Amino acid sequence: MQSDNDLKILRHSAAHLLAHAVTELFPGTLLTIGPATQDGFFYDFLPETNFKEHDLPIISARMSELAQQNLKITHKEISKEEARALYKNNPFKLELIDNLEGDTVGLSVQGDFYDLCRGGHVASTKELAHFKLESISGSYWRADRNGQALQRITGTAFYTAQDLQDFEDKREELLKYDHRRLGKQLDLFSFHNEGLGFPFFHPKGMIILNTMKNYLRKKLVKAQYLEIATPTMLSDELWKQSGHYEHYKNNMYFCAIDESTYAVKPMNCPGSILVYKERPHSYRELPMRLAEFGLVHRYEISGALHGLFRVRAFTQDDAHIYCTPAQIETEVCTIIDMTLEIFKAFGFNDIQVGLSTRPENSMGSDEYWDQATNALKNALTKKGVDYIINEGDGAFYGPKIDFSIGDSLGRRWQCGTVQVDPFQPQNFDLHYMDSDGTKKQPIIIHRAIYGSFERFFGIVLEHYKGKLPFWLAPVQIKLLTITDDQKEYAHSIAQQLSAHNLRIEIDSSSDPLAGQIKSAQLQYIPWMLVLGKKEVENNTITIRYLDGKQEFGLTLAQVLDKTTTLNNI
Amino acid sequence: MQSDNDLKILRHSAAHLLAHAVTELFPGTLLTIGPATQDGFFYDFLPETNFKEHDLPIISARMSELAQQNLKITHKEISKEEARALYKNNPFKLELIDNLEGDTVGLSVQGDFYDLCRGGHVASTKELAHFKLESISGSYWRADRNGQALQRITGTAFYTAQDLQDFEDKREELLKYDHRRLGKQLDLFSFHNEGLGFPFFHPKGMIILNTMKNYLRKKLVKAQYLEIATPTMLSDELWKQSGHYEHYKNNMYFCAIDESTYAVKPMNCPGSILVYKERPHSYRELPMRLAEFGLVHRYEISGALHGLFRVRAFTQDDAHIYCTPAQIETEVCTIIDMTLEIFKAFGFNDIQVGLSTRPENSMGSDEYWDQATNALKNALTKKGVDYIINEGDGAFYGPKIDFSIGDSLGRRWQCGTVQVDPFQPQNFDLHYMDSDGTKKQPIIIHRAIYGSFERFFGIVLEHYKGKLPFWLAPVQIKLLTITDDQKEYAHSIAQQLSAHNLRIEIDSSSDPLAGQIKSAQLQYIPWMLVLGKKEVENNTITIRYLDGKQEFGLTLAQVLDKTTTLNNI
Repeated sequence: MQSDNDLKILRHSAAHLLAHAVTELFPGTLLTIGPATQDGFFYDFLPETNFKEHDLPIISARMSELAQQNLKITHKEISKEEARALYKNNPFKLELIDNLEGDTVGLSVQGDFYDLCRGGHVASTKELAHFKLESISGSYWRADRNGQALQRITGTAFYTAQDLQDFEDKREELLKYDHRRLGKQLDLFSFHNEGLGFPFFHPKGMIILNTMKNYLRKKLVKAQYLEIATPTMLSDELWKQSGHYEHYKNNMYFCAIDESTYAVKPMNCPGSILVYKERPHSYRELPMRLAEFGLVHRYEISGALHGLFRVRAFTQDDAHIYCTPAQIETEVCTIIDMTLEIFKAFGFNDIQVGLSTRPENSMGSDEYWDQATNALKNALTKKGVDYIINEGDGAFYGPKIDFSIGDSLGRRWQCGTVQVDPFQPQNFDLHYMDSDGTKKQPIIIHRAIYGSFERFFGIVLEHYKGKLPFWLAPVQIKLLTITDDQKEYAHSIAQQLSAHNLRIEIDSSSDPLAGQIKSAQLQYIPWMLVLGKKEVENNTITIRYLDGKQEFGLTLAQVLDKTTTLNNI
Repeated sequence: MQSDNDLKILRHSAAHLLAHAVTELFPGTLLTIGPATQDGFFYDFLPETNFKEHDLPIISARMSELAQQNLKITHKEISKEEARALYKNNPFKLELIDNLEGDTVGLSVQGDFYDLCRGGHVASTKELAHFKLESISGSYWRADRNGQALQRITGTAFYTAQDLQDFEDKREELLKYDHRRLGKQLDLFSFHNEGLGFPFFHPKGMIILNTMKNYLRKKLVKAQYLEIATPTMLSDELWKQSGHYEHYKNNMYFCAIDESTYAVKPMNCPGSILVYKERPHSYRELPMRLAEFGLVHRYEISGALHGLFRVRAFTQDDAHIYCTPAQIETEVCTIIDMTLEIFKAFGFNDIQVGLSTRPENSMGSDEYWDQATNALKNALTKKGVDYIINEGDGAFYGPKIDFSIGDSLGRRWQCGTVQVDPFQPQNFDLHYMDSDGTKKQPIIIHRAIYGSFERFFGIVLEHYKGKLPFWLAPVQIKLLTITDDQKEYAHSIAQQLSAHNLRIEIDSSSDPLAGQIKSAQLQYIPWMLVLGKKEVENNTITIRYLDGKQEFGLTLAQVLDKTTTLNNI
């Protein structure tokens, strides 16, 4: 069993092997970079003629040959001057060389192929036999959409054939439960070329989204949050003041209005801050917890878009808590409780927590960092939450907590975050009047739990493999009748269930029961109520659960009791 | 008592008088147009130096002098040639002359002042004594924001001093209940220079908005609507196909994404149509009622912005009903029921209905127009709704029904609309499979009830003069205690009320009861629960209503019963 780091080395070496094969087969191709990734590796090329899907097996075959040749892979340091000479016709590598610190650069060599490399690779190409090329996609030099368009070949590699096979099996299983596929099967949402990266929610998907929102709203009211709504478009002057313009403008959309430029908001903070600033505040009002289900728009290159996981517009379950430094700990305790409760409600019991601490080049005093970091640590400890420390991974203005959830398919998703921020209060000159009559500056705690409603929707859908729990299911109950004689009884039951806000459907077909059951199962409807002659005679109900188990002879009151328990999360 | 038409003539003449005075006082000023409006008149000028607020009394004084001079106002027709010579230095008037049909143009003359005029004015300036100049604002030539910027002076005029005084009294009353003022007093929403025309909703305003939404959602579920959500940004290709680009692009906002241009949606129809087109439909699915609470953005010149009444972004309670022509009548019946029920829930009992019929240059056959128009007429008749016919006022593709509501301040607001549309189904090639196995084209019925959540919010707020009914009030109940001894009792009552989702506040001050009452009254909180020694002893509650009436000795169960009734609208 290799460590993650070993795998990284292997995969980075596989990227070199890919570049090696491409250089031989397509000699005019310019190489750029080829890193290892979470699941494999890629290499970005500028080919003379665009690679096509059918080039992949050819490249793959050449890579296998090179692997069999058992070429020794060596590393050497050469002077920048030497490197520049080697790459005199490759502006990308020249740019990389210029940007490296020091007077020398690393070079990886195998046979007559060489590539710039910091070091860290396997000893021989022989070790690279168990790879797989997966796709060709578009990319940009330095991921800058105004930069040179490139082609990316993506693949993966493992130390053994078995590991590769396991990976492919796993991937096939994931594909079966891919939310894009489930979304289509269950008629939940769609994507259209008229709005790349912008999801369209269908009625059943909308029920799930609204249920997620209402559930969260209930928790927000309980935790004394106040909900606000701020505009989708705001002047670029505001984004310049907040700093988003400088650091994030390539991911923002802009519109002209009269003589001004407006940005479609990529974040909700500046809007929340304007609401806070609208009137003076007393210390009595703090902590003031302003929540917003804010629709934000962020540019992503089209190649990076991925169903609901990576979109160009999403709704954050955002909140900004204006409080004193002394209130941080208590607030974070409440956020931890709320976050854990909510993740568990969606069936996520494997929750990992990370605490990111002061980075280099941070702003603020030692005292502030100690206080803020200790507040987060104390909160985690008080709540009995194990956490790892991500040393130096905090924002330049404050420490943060990240929550990640493990799903039923063995993957891990970073969702919730809690971020301490004294920077924007200073930047926007926020105040409150303290009990001693002096003006003081609050801290902002930024926090999100789902993160993005859309992405969390996708995660939940895959986690449950489409079989949503009763409270979330767009149709909770389907009424089936054995013959048409029970239709009237079914309608009467349906009416009474609907009066309790249950989401029900009646199978109005005259299909045999087996057909009705199959059709309800395909829609993953949690409960079927099966109504036959006996049920009508005894005024009872049979529940057939999605897994095939059945309960007979229930009264309507008993059925309603069960639904109340399931809906009361 | 003069008719509306007489008033129009008077006010149009007053606009001439204004232009007369301005021409004398500011000789280099170019005149453009000066029509009568609903409440008065305006004149758009291009001055040499911008008019200032302090110019208004000077202009006003000169107008009064001219009125006293009792100048005879005459009308004559002159040749276009003659007119062009008169206005050789005024490009605006030259453009107007060019655009008029016929060989002559009308000229109104009073003393040595003349102005282009179709005719229709009072006999002498003497009749124009009762006017008032109100404001200076920016405008554009032909309301085109790319056109020449002008200055607009707005005023009003009446036949008698008493009428003018009544108007001013009325306006002052309206100002008292202006929703912008109430919004600030009750901390409901705000506007900021960082987003001109884009409202920011504060926590209490958000409760009202969400209550309006939830109420409507309940009605939608009952009427078997399906809710969807479509993206805020969509490719301009789609807007070109829908025709919005051609007819509406000056009111749309555009962003660049990659190599495409996207519009921020000004309407929800194209998004809804893409959802319909996502899969084939059977006749069994019709009528398919797709509702969307769609946030739309539309450009308005900054001078036209007016609180929540005229904004640059608002949420429509939109729906598109895909149905067969034969289903129109039944659908419209349901819409009429729903519309009337909803308006009445907000206290609007004065509802007027108009039916707009086939215009000139319409598309579609006689048969279609007869069928569609009769469907609307039959629905109105069946529902016993009186209506007026707006002959020829329909859209080029279909007839429509408009609902307008009269408010407590004597104003009328056009809100709901129902619009029959066979054009977009044809344009987007929509189909369903009919029972005979043939592909047929559905009709779309566009309908909205509130129209805009934001505007309706403003209307409701003014209609109730800020004193929202129990079910809508952001804080429904405030608990007051006579001494601190009752605080514990108050908290226990509060907890039980909150458990029933009531929105409550406790006055935590130790102010005397009178002070607590006054503070709750200023917030227009519908109920105060007054808790004193007697209430604690008897375990009862006293309700004090906003109007000062009181009910004593109520049990908690009785109080809860009352709230259930009031909330159940």
